[in-house]
Amino acid sequence: MASPAGSSPMPAVNHKFVLAARPVGLPKRTDWNYVEESVREPGEGELLVKVIYISLDPAMRGWMNAGKSYVEPVGIGQVMRALALGRVINSRNPKYAAGDYVYGLLGVQEYALSNGAGLTKVDPAVAPLPLYLSTLGMPGMTAYFGILDVAQIKPGDTVVISGAAGAVGAVAGQIAKIKGCRVVGIAGGAEKCAYIKDLGFDAAIDYKSEPVAKGLATHCPNGVDVYFDNVGGDILDAALARLNLGARVAICGAISQYNNTTPIKGPSNYLSLLINRATMRGFVVFDFAARYGEAARDMAGWIAAGKLKSKEDIVEGLEKFPATLLMLYDGENFGKLILKVANA
Amino acid sequence: MASPAGSSPMPAVNHKFVLAARPVGLPKRTDWNYVEESVREPGEGELLVKVIYISLDPAMRGWMNAGKSYVEPVGIGQVMRALALGRVINSRNPKYAAGDYVYGLLGVQEYALSNGAGLTKVDPAVAPLPLYLSTLGMPGMTAYFGILDVAQIKPGDTVVISGAAGAVGAVAGQIAKIKGCRVVGIAGGAEKCAYIKDLGFDAAIDYKSEPVAKGLATHCPNGVDVYFDNVGGDILDAALARLNLGARVAICGAISQYNNTTPIKGPSNYLSLLINRATMRGFVVFDFAARYGEAARDMAGWIAAGKLKSKEDIVEGLEKFPATLLMLYDGENFGKLILKVANA
Repeated sequence: MASPAGSSPMPAVNHKFVLAARPVGLPKRTDWNYVEESVREPGEGELLVKVIYISLDPAMRGWMNAGKSYVEPVGIGQVMRALALGRVINSRNPKYAAGDYVYGLLGVQEYALSNGAGLTKVDPAVAPLPLYLSTLGMPGMTAYFGILDVAQIKPGDTVVISGAAGAVGAVAGQIAKIKGCRVVGIAGGAEKCAYIKDLGFDAAIDYKSEPVAKGLATHCPNGVDVYFDNVGGDILDAALARLNLGARVAICGAISQYNNTTPIKGPSNYLSLLINRATMRGFVVFDFAARYGEAARDMAGWIAAGKLKSKEDIVEGLEKFPATLLMLYDGENFGKLILKVANA
Repeated sequence: MASPAGSSPMPAVNHKFVLAARPVGLPKRTDWNYVEESVREPGEGELLVKVIYISLDPAMRGWMNAGKSYVEPVGIGQVMRALALGRVINSRNPKYAAGDYVYGLLGVQEYALSNGAGLTKVDPAVAPLPLYLSTLGMPGMTAYFGILDVAQIKPGDTVVISGAAGAVGAVAGQIAKIKGCRVVGIAGGAEKCAYIKDLGFDAAIDYKSEPVAKGLATHCPNGVDVYFDNVGGDILDAALARLNLGARVAICGAISQYNNTTPIKGPSNYLSLLINRATMRGFVVFDFAARYGEAARDMAGWIAAGKLKSKEDIVEGLEKFPATLLMLYDGENFGKLILKVANA
């Protein structure tokens, strides 16, 4: 069968990272194999996507583990799962045409064959492409539903956010400001703290230069109504110790614990939930998929109005994937970490 | 001024336990002083109560600590705080008459002077007096609001309860059965497990004879929808590991941790809240005080219908207070632990 009109010439080879071993602690280069393979023509209903930007997210570490989680683990020998954005170069799926830009779980590779399930078309005329992996993508959606629906912020709340300079935290904090809260961010280093203050956070605590408990005592003299946690560990405990009556703790992630080789550090101060009649709730952004449109409209409006800013940290080269992913876990990246693997 | 009609002769002396030191770990005899004092006549608006039954509750350990909690700590030199039930023997408060039975924070002593605030009259014709310290008192109210309002049980839920043979757990489990749940209790020892099965629990896990994780795997093959926690520690972790999507965890207490001299063991498996979009909520029964009447009516009805049973473990003698309180923390008591200090 001939290719549909508008298709590009078929590429000969794909390069991809496949999972080679389940990591113990921090992932190592040898936990993936870099594989070359020939590219198959799309079958009936399939499309071929040339990957441009790959999103590197803390959650990817969890996807590498065996065992029950909110999604199936990546199988050994399977392409490393990743959200990514690319351009359709060949389609036998009536919903997609060559030239369309799409976003979805395309994986850490140069070319992705897809049946179209779970893909979303994005428009480069509306926003720069990397924004679809940050504020208009999963991190932005996570921030939006986490701070509004899970943490249920109210005007006047004192809201504390960890990982505040990260892709999720920075957006969550800005939304809380838009909604009339007092927002205190926790981040690592003077540069990140200056950044979140530029974004409009009322205060920033540099966990690398002062104990978080002390910073919270200084900047939350009337306690904490909402704590949005991206990091877990000692910072979660410090926040729990300052909860107000009826406080809400949204558990978005626990990046400090993802590479543990010892058991995860549970929050010693969890009985603050009892003392303060507080609620701790975990969430996964996928549950809000039906409402992504609503969130994207709000966020695009705030971006247009200059109320919501974002920062992307773009590293070029598919082969840099393993080392670049590790930047997330030591806080080296500054802004949404994205791997660029082709020109748009 | 003459005493009102119906008053008993004034007793000469009161004996009481006052807090002498803030315990480190398990309380010791020397953390209290046993004090004799003369009894003062009630002033205008006051009443004198002869204490009959003193409720011994796990929460009392927390009241002995310094620092912020859901109530003020007991002060050094103050009578040890306790819920108790007694008979009014002398009243200059128009709301109470000699002969009335009252329930409230009367303290660990023989005679309590009160201005009437926080006291509730109870009727020995409606229920045996000790029941007002168990199912119709704070433990029963805690179970009722914890399982219905905080844990929000629904018919068909698999509900797991720790401390299931205790004063709160046994009632919470029976209410869950009344509401159409499948109920699995965790208790220490064959006798307590047999008891909760007699109460109608569907299954019992003896944490002294098998790992709780294994018991939960056996008895909750389809996971846990609600976990009502009285104990904390490793059992909380085992329950977290088996949560279903949207599960609710009610934090009622953490008796395994109250006497720690090391930091409290936080739940290592708390990220199960994230994976399962689950909620952990702490509560304090006092917040539901406005609805105690509603709960007492329901519970009295269930007791009358034979659907709700209770067990009291009554020890006689005020001087036995320190040793008897410690029974709670090693699980030695069997049923609601009550100290009897006078005849009714």
